[in-house]
Amino acid sequence: MKTNIDSIPAVRQLKEAREVIRPYIHRTPVFTSATLDRITGARLFFKCENFQKGGSFKFRGASNAVMTLPENALSKGVATHSSGNHAQALSLAARIRNIKAFIVMPENAPKIKVSAVQEYGGEIHFCAPTLPDRERTLKKLIGKTEAAEIHPYNDYRIIAGQSSVAAEIIEEITDPDILLVPVGGGGLLSGSILSTRYLSPRTKVYAAEPEKADDAFQSFRQKKFVPADKPQTIADGLRTSLGSKTYPIIMGGVTDILTATEESIVKAMYLIWERMKIIVEPSAAVPLACIFDNPLPFRKKRVAIILSGGNVDLGKLPWNEEPASIH
Amino acid sequence: MKTNIDSIPAVRQLKEAREVIRPYIHRTPVFTSATLDRITGARLFFKCENFQKGGSFKFRGASNAVMTLPENALSKGVATHSSGNHAQALSLAARIRNIKAFIVMPENAPKIKVSAVQEYGGEIHFCAPTLPDRERTLKKLIGKTEAAEIHPYNDYRIIAGQSSVAAEIIEEITDPDILLVPVGGGGLLSGSILSTRYLSPRTKVYAAEPEKADDAFQSFRQKKFVPADKPQTIADGLRTSLGSKTYPIIMGGVTDILTATEESIVKAMYLIWERMKIIVEPSAAVPLACIFDNPLPFRKKRVAIILSGGNVDLGKLPWNEEPASIH
Repeated sequence: MKTNIDSIPAVRQLKEAREVIRPYIHRTPVFTSATLDRITGARLFFKCENFQKGGSFKFRGASNAVMTLPENALSKGVATHSSGNHAQALSLAARIRNIKAFIVMPENAPKIKVSAVQEYGGEIHFCAPTLPDRERTLKKLIGKTEAAEIHPYNDYRIIAGQSSVAAEIIEEITDPDILLVPVGGGGLLSGSILSTRYLSPRTKVYAAEPEKADDAFQSFRQKKFVPADKPQTIADGLRTSLGSKTYPIIMGGVTDILTATEESIVKAMYLIWERMKIIVEPSAAVPLACIFDNPLPFRKKRVAIILSGGNVDLGKLPWNEEPASIH
Repeated sequence: MKTNIDSIPAVRQLKEAREVIRPYIHRTPVFTSATLDRITGARLFFKCENFQKGGSFKFRGASNAVMTLPENALSKGVATHSSGNHAQALSLAARIRNIKAFIVMPENAPKIKVSAVQEYGGEIHFCAPTLPDRERTLKKLIGKTEAAEIHPYNDYRIIAGQSSVAAEIIEEITDPDILLVPVGGGGLLSGSILSTRYLSPRTKVYAAEPEKADDAFQSFRQKKFVPADKPQTIADGLRTSLGSKTYPIIMGGVTDILTATEESIVKAMYLIWERMKIIVEPSAAVPLACIFDNPLPFRKKRVAIILSGGNVDLGKLPWNEEPASIH
């Protein structure tokens, strides 16, 4: 069993993570769309992590963290606070290793997310819906259970797991010019930067962020850490701030960070559903939306886009709420 | 250029059709779902024709018909009456061969279908919304243009094109026990029966039909042709009756025809969207719905299901109309 990673993962550690998670993850397909190529003037390759187990790329990092947990920690289980895809991914990975997963969720979390975690066997502990409350509840829970905390992104084991998405892309697509990755807490983006640096250094990594949750964009522009300030975006997976481990990797490795309007995010999501016949969540549509809003860097380029997840409430679709915005 | 096929296609003719259409069609992927396997107690393989060009398997037959059209007929174009997937498929195939496609549509056809045909360059001629009106309008149009009529299913060129779906499945899946195919006019089912007979005779072919459009079921039970009688099903692609060319192939080759309730069709469609993260139209969900309503023949079997198409109005989803039926 591998030990913890205590500095920015080297190429050997990323390779180890791929081997660790290989038996558990899906190797997801890469789709293309002649229509979206025509609309954007680019050659787009969509890596379909919406088809990943648990419905998002988060299962890769969670698997790496859970599968590399030392034997003597197994009986205590794992814990996190999350109302999103990491909660599902960690619950599923824990169930596969037959250990407990304690998930702290705000009491106002959508029912659909609560039942998804329950279905994967996660043990939910509700708390008041503020970040201090979530952290306090998690700390108390860990004090009682001695479970290992698995942070959704500020953890090198998670970053190493997420790096496998870009590694697969680089194996599948000959020589992409650009890799375009959504950024929330920065785990996927950090992993993508490391994989690209080691395996395809010619490929530029761009990050895609909602205009209404543009903390990474602001951090990059101002060259200092700027936290998210009450983000109101529909892209619920991208509302978090960067972490102490993801911030330096991103600042040192991203070519640029671009933003997209809410209107473009809904339009991109709608087009992916309508044209590619696949279900992606709003966060996964942010990269394509960023191309709509910033077309120049992508024109005539070979662009790999990570469709990060597909967990969405099918009874509450944005174009049914505001049909005017997409027709 | 191949000539017309004037009797039930032989294995050689199916192979020729595959070669003719190979440069134009997508070879669609086969997906699996651990959750749906668990729910049904079967091992399911979903052939994703929702990812086919034009959004459905119909493009295969239409391509074969258009690409084998004799040179001297090209300048006149092709014509059909259809408000559904065949209209889009024929328009797209005609555009690729750079010939005209005349499409007769009822004046009450949904806007989304009208604009899809227009987008693929089809020339629409509206008529009153009855079958006699559609046939009369098409006859008049063909009298004027001398375009070649391409019937959506009662045509051996179409049947030979549709047979390529099952041929690909047989190449991809080792030894399926059952191939389960939705049936409307019977073009896809006839092609599936022929491919299976020639290439995997051990595989049984079952047909799936909505209970509210059960003309094929009734024909099979009563051993005589029973036409569809005002079908009211949500599965809009399966409202048609069998044709003179599809009826005998089906009666001689199908193991059984099963039906599904409307409620099961909506439930199956919802589960495919939610669990597999792919978009299928109601007609494509009918096979899975038939397994829900008739589980016995499928238990512990390797079952290939054709997901026939993914053309659906994203602004009008059945679970948003009647949420009670699926939760």
